[in-house]
Amino acid sequence: MVLKLALLVAALVAVVSPAAALWPQPRNITTGSTALRLSPLFTISLSSIHGAPSDLVEAVARAETYARTDNLGRLVVGRGSSDVAAYQHAKTLSVLELSLSQGAKVQSITTEAQKPLEERDEAYTLSIPSDGSTAKLTASSTLGLFHGLTTFGQLWYENAGTIYTLSTPVDIEDSPAYPYRGLMLDTARNFFPVSDIYRTLDAMSMVKINTFHWHVVDSQSFPLEVPGFTDLAEKGAYDPTMVYTATDVKNIVAYAGARGIDVMVEIDTPGHTAIISQAHPEFVACAQSSPWSTFANEPPAGQLRFADPNVTQFTTELLHAVAEMFPGTMLSTGGDELNIPCYDADTETQSLLQSSGQTLEEALNVYVQAEQKTLASVGKTPAVWEEMVLVQNVTLSPDTLVLVWISSDDVKAVAQAGFKIIHSASDYFYLDCGGGGWVGDNPSGNSWCDPMKTWQLSYTFDPVANLTADEAKLVMGGQHLLWTEQSGPENLDPIVWPRAASSAELFWSGPGGNVTSALPRLHDVSFRMRQRGVNSINLQPLWCALRPDACDLNA
Amino acid sequence: MVLKLALLVAALVAVVSPAAALWPQPRNITTGSTALRLSPLFTISLSSIHGAPSDLVEAVARAETYARTDNLGRLVVGRGSSDVAAYQHAKTLSVLELSLSQGAKVQSITTEAQKPLEERDEAYTLSIPSDGSTAKLTASSTLGLFHGLTTFGQLWYENAGTIYTLSTPVDIEDSPAYPYRGLMLDTARNFFPVSDIYRTLDAMSMVKINTFHWHVVDSQSFPLEVPGFTDLAEKGAYDPTMVYTATDVKNIVAYAGARGIDVMVEIDTPGHTAIISQAHPEFVACAQSSPWSTFANEPPAGQLRFADPNVTQFTTELLHAVAEMFPGTMLSTGGDELNIPCYDADTETQSLLQSSGQTLEEALNVYVQAEQKTLASVGKTPAVWEEMVLVQNVTLSPDTLVLVWISSDDVKAVAQAGFKIIHSASDYFYLDCGGGGWVGDNPSGNSWCDPMKTWQLSYTFDPVANLTADEAKLVMGGQHLLWTEQSGPENLDPIVWPRAASSAELFWSGPGGNVTSALPRLHDVSFRMRQRGVNSINLQPLWCALRPDACDLNA
Repeated sequence: MVLKLALLVAALVAVVSPAAALWPQPRNITTGSTALRLSPLFTISLSSIHGAPSDLVEAVARAETYARTDNLGRLVVGRGSSDVAAYQHAKTLSVLELSLSQGAKVQSITTEAQKPLEERDEAYTLSIPSDGSTAKLTASSTLGLFHGLTTFGQLWYENAGTIYTLSTPVDIEDSPAYPYRGLMLDTARNFFPVSDIYRTLDAMSMVKINTFHWHVVDSQSFPLEVPGFTDLAEKGAYDPTMVYTATDVKNIVAYAGARGIDVMVEIDTPGHTAIISQAHPEFVACAQSSPWSTFANEPPAGQLRFADPNVTQFTTELLHAVAEMFPGTMLSTGGDELNIPCYDADTETQSLLQSSGQTLEEALNVYVQAEQKTLASVGKTPAVWEEMVLVQNVTLSPDTLVLVWISSDDVKAVAQAGFKIIHSASDYFYLDCGGGGWVGDNPSGNSWCDPMKTWQLSYTFDPVANLTADEAKLVMGGQHLLWTEQSGPENLDPIVWPRAASSAELFWSGPGGNVTSALPRLHDVSFRMRQRGVNSINLQPLWCALRPDACDLNA
Repeated sequence: MVLKLALLVAALVAVVSPAAALWPQPRNITTGSTALRLSPLFTISLSSIHGAPSDLVEAVARAETYARTDNLGRLVVGRGSSDVAAYQHAKTLSVLELSLSQGAKVQSITTEAQKPLEERDEAYTLSIPSDGSTAKLTASSTLGLFHGLTTFGQLWYENAGTIYTLSTPVDIEDSPAYPYRGLMLDTARNFFPVSDIYRTLDAMSMVKINTFHWHVVDSQSFPLEVPGFTDLAEKGAYDPTMVYTATDVKNIVAYAGARGIDVMVEIDTPGHTAIISQAHPEFVACAQSSPWSTFANEPPAGQLRFADPNVTQFTTELLHAVAEMFPGTMLSTGGDELNIPCYDADTETQSLLQSSGQTLEEALNVYVQAEQKTLASVGKTPAVWEEMVLVQNVTLSPDTLVLVWISSDDVKAVAQAGFKIIHSASDYFYLDCGGGGWVGDNPSGNSWCDPMKTWQLSYTFDPVANLTADEAKLVMGGQHLLWTEQSGPENLDPIVWPRAASSAELFWSGPGGNVTSALPRLHDVSFRMRQRGVNSINLQPLWCALRPDACDLNA
């Protein structure tokens, strides 16, 4: 009877404090309840991989360092002090051995991460015995090995100088449900130093996000130095110090690639381009026109005169130059929030249309097709916002990736049009919602997409809601997005983390996750991010974080 | 004609970019449009003040440093580069001379700041001529001088190594509309290191907030080391490193006092005390009872058994010991969210009531009166949350300060009861609203007080709405408040600043401020805070911050 009670208590403890707080949850995992310590001499061996690429060697070095320095106390009362009995006589792990499947081509993580979505291989297998014998991580690609290293790093806690896990043996077979798992950052409304982007990439890689959707320029500023088009940043950046130089971009792309992350840059056109008027006033209609609300969804107004063949030439040459800066295969030409009254009022556009005999829509079609042709010529897959399909009705290349942002209700129509989908819906994934209205002179204004999108809401999104089985195949994944009207380096981490981890798990582990069992693991994500210098916020009082489920609504 | 146009342009510039972006707006100010440079040898003279207290000497040294090191570029396109013509031949200010009015007693800023609300003298007069002759700051108290130094510091911008202002001569006669201008921080749901509190006090002083309402303990943790009651923190703090020692408190009080800030500590009783059960299980009813939602507004449940004379003795002795740690005259005993079902279910309380023949309400009355008697015996003015007046109906000392938090609609009733009021309404001043629901197992939960309370909303609050002239006299001021269920050091600055500056101006400059004209000045506050290491956030894209009014709704 006493034994039975003890077992029951043990079972309860196991339920309420997940000893293996992995995020995203691996798709196949079995864990035991035997403790294992990490040897002070622990190393990760690459000896079985001939010609291991340098970014893998570096990832291994970082993983060794993290295992030693994360020093995360387990999120239970006492922060692991009660685990001593469990681990003090445990075996010690000395080696994690990495290997590639037979016949696998040895390529860098970066190369693997930058492949087209459908060619990426992110799967891995991780096995950690309880007896201290060599742990094994295998994959068919270095990208898979990288993800396995990330998982391995989430297993360890520290107490009084001992690094240990409570949940061996561990056997994991893992691969993502969706190939696209992103985070979008707008660096045009407000600027972020390169160091902020590095830190964000680090955090992204911790939860296996594999795409940095970089909304780099917009109407407010043009902080991107593009070879051959340097006047755009010279005249359009907020400040000479607020520019991503070509070297910065190269470094960011490399930093991302080494962390399993592709960069999908966005040059939003033909709308959201007011600032280009600083260098090329002749290319921009209704630049800074007043009242801005007649000519744009937010200030300042200004859109490229796409009916002008010179603008088409400028745009395609710019896209060509940008494409050369970014080795990944995806590139977004934007296409959201086109304002028609702006062109109606633009005498230049009207006379161009008159002389060409085109309607505005026909001219737009010509312009977008020229953009897509340019991208195709340099091997890029085009991405656009949903209006290009649902509002403007332009003819798009069938391989176009469509980002649905206005509402998740629009997913069905895009799928019916036959396009691949990246979930980016404002009603689930916009990190800026709920932050209050930001236009001046509006005392009672709230954000247009109130309320705040909580991690719970994003986490419970259904990526295939209302879709047929065939339509569901068009879903490539999804992402959180941060528009930065009210953000900057000051609140980047707190507004993004840990919330953006919820879509990372949704699109890796697949839908259907339970918020109650996810919460303790998400606390773990947040606390581990802090150990690595990311200001990820508290989701609950520490009292709750240390007592899983004690703060559930009905606890 | 050309001249006329130039004048018109100058006038427009003056309208859209306030050369004197002071916050809070002084109550009487005239400024000119003559530039003045700050001499590299600029000093602030205290020579006319005999026996200047050390905290004033230090404040002067900080003010000299800030003037030299803020290096804030003016928030216009070019960040002040177009000001060169205006300032390059300007006169140079070498000396700001401080003096106290004749007959004024020389006391430290700290002493002045810790006086009872009605005895504080925060007024000052500042005069800066255009000709480079000595600027003068006078007041009847060192506290007034301190505020004047703060105002002085907000006048200066930097461009290419030159520190200048565009708006001399400056003549200011200033004093606050309300004596209480606070900020409440909860350090119990989540803990904040002392350095975070120092930084917050620095930011508070920048906008003349004069009271730090320190909600130091609550049901989740007891991070306060109280001499004679050290077991409360030993057993109730989250961690031995998460304790404010008696020395920390002394340092915080001193740091605050030297910045014109009084500390009003709160020991919330008899509710919000679950964690006391760790040291004194016998004093706490329904400690961690389940379901918590039956016994408390948030987890964990647990309230002091106020019907027990031992608990009354414990409470009054604790309050006495706490009172000795805090030299200011205000001390809050809390009194919010008392849960009656907890006491109904508590057999201990029921048997105490039965043997004493008291009702629960009568016992509470005895308890609260014992608390207030203790405070009176050590010269403290008691503060309580509104329920003590409106729900529990206990007999309170007539000098009690009442914090109205549930709704601003309750202000009238508290005023009708004749109590002094500190505006703290959740519908205007809660910084945590809009942050999403935090209890577990509640996927669709939002914060109970959605939406987010924007700075515009707080700024346009009317402190005397629905009050008679006599009732209006009961309003002592008000404050923003941060409850920290979802906050910690990671998001303290971004969630507080610059929003909390809106109530600082409301209660200093008085109601009726205009959000449109305030916004450019508030940008200035936010940017200057950043120059001093406070992560105050962007309210708009930088494009808008540099172009006052260009992003107004109807611009």
